[in-house]
Amino acid sequence: MPLWKIYHPENAYTANDKKAIAEAITAIYPLPKFYVGVVFQEVPKHSFYIGGEPAGNFVRIWVDHIARQFVDESLKERFFAAVNRRLAPYLADRGLHWEIHVDETPFGLWRIQGLQPPLPDSPAENKWREENMPSAY
Amino acid sequence: MPLWKIYHPENAYTANDKKAIAEAITAIYPLPKFYVGVVFQEVPKHSFYIGGEPAGNFVRIWVDHIARQFVDESLKERFFAAVNRRLAPYLADRGLHWEIHVDETPFGLWRIQGLQPPLPDSPAENKWREENMPSAY
Amino acid sequence: MPLWKIYHPENAYTANDKKAIAEAITAIYPLPKFYVGVVFQEVPKHSFYIGGEPAGNFVRIWVDHIARQFVDESLKERFFAAVNRRLAPYLADRGLHWEIHVDETPFGLWRIQGLQPPLPDSPAENKWREENMPSAY
Repeated sequence: MPLWKIYHPENAYTANDKKAIAEAITAIYPLPKFYVGVVFQEVPKHSFYIGGEPAGNFVRIWVDHIARQFVDESLKERFFAAVNRRLAPYLADRGLHWEIHVDETPFGLWRIQGLQPPLPDSPAENKWREENMPSAY
Repeated sequence: MPLWKIYHPENAYTANDKKAIAEAITAIYPLPKFYVGVVFQEVPKHSFYIGGEPAGNFVRIWVDHIARQFVDESLKERFFAAVNRRLAPYLADRGLHWEIHVDETPFGLWRIQGLQPPLPDSPAENKWREENMPSAY
Repeated sequence: MPLWKIYHPENAYTANDKKAIAEAITAIYPLPKFYVGVVFQEVPKHSFYIGGEPAGNFVRIWVDHIARQFVDESLKERFFAAVNRRLAPYLADRGLHWEIHVDETPFGLWRIQGLQPPLPDSPAENKWREENMPSAY
């Protein structure tokens, strides 16, 4: 958690851009860094439609959150404000149109290297965060 | 919302087919047209399995609904009847096997161009529908 | 249901590996075999990030469960134990890092060949299981 899937036009991003975007996304979360997965997928214009029209200028972001659930509205606002701010150089500032939606999936149905990740803010999660890798606990 | 992801065999659809499918899907929803995103993904037979067997003849459709939730069973029936009818020329009528499932994800965790989309059937949503683009409200 | 999406490094798996993985996954479920869909997607290192770093050694598995919901913790444990055991030859034993998460999506929003699948363990589901294909009921 989280898993980000970024559908983008062909040649929209260089490898350096993609690394910078992945770092920007990772920095949003106060989680062990290795929790944050980002998959980029280039979609040819003939395979990508918005409102029935080929989308050559659109970035569609799909996210699953697992490790944390939003518990109130202000946290959602802060999250999306951070997304807007940190990703602006790769989206709005380039004239790309974009849309994002997030789902929240069950904490209990998640494993890393076969291990159930520790509870939020537990000593074990702190260890995973510090070491940036999973370990038995 | 909605986001449709269509996994299909190699060479199953031309660009014209894909545009027609995206238009058919868009026509199902009484929403601003630009809410409807469709991503096609060609999957080689060696990467696509149904029941453990390579699937050269199968279309697997995954959908996230965000802008609206189904509030009763009759709406679900009408939705899937519309899907069956509108997509038949590209699925059943071509002898392709197919499966679809839909998830419903939180309205509050969705942004377009950084904006939270307006409430269902609000004046702002009506404006977005008429103009077929998002705007501050 | 279920739908498995497996993001893996380039050249991590041969076609034979992928068939064996799909068979191993299918064997986990006491469902009609054709319910089990598996899509493999090769992701180039420059498009796949874990914790902001390019992931050349990582398999990220995303799953939607539809036909059954986990009703207690022991079933979840048994499921993930089966996943760990059956997929070990293609993950841990090859030195690949990996992560999996599962979501549960609404039974009522699922169709195969346009048909709503029968209720769990109903006579119609048993027929679908025995014949390994859908039929009107």
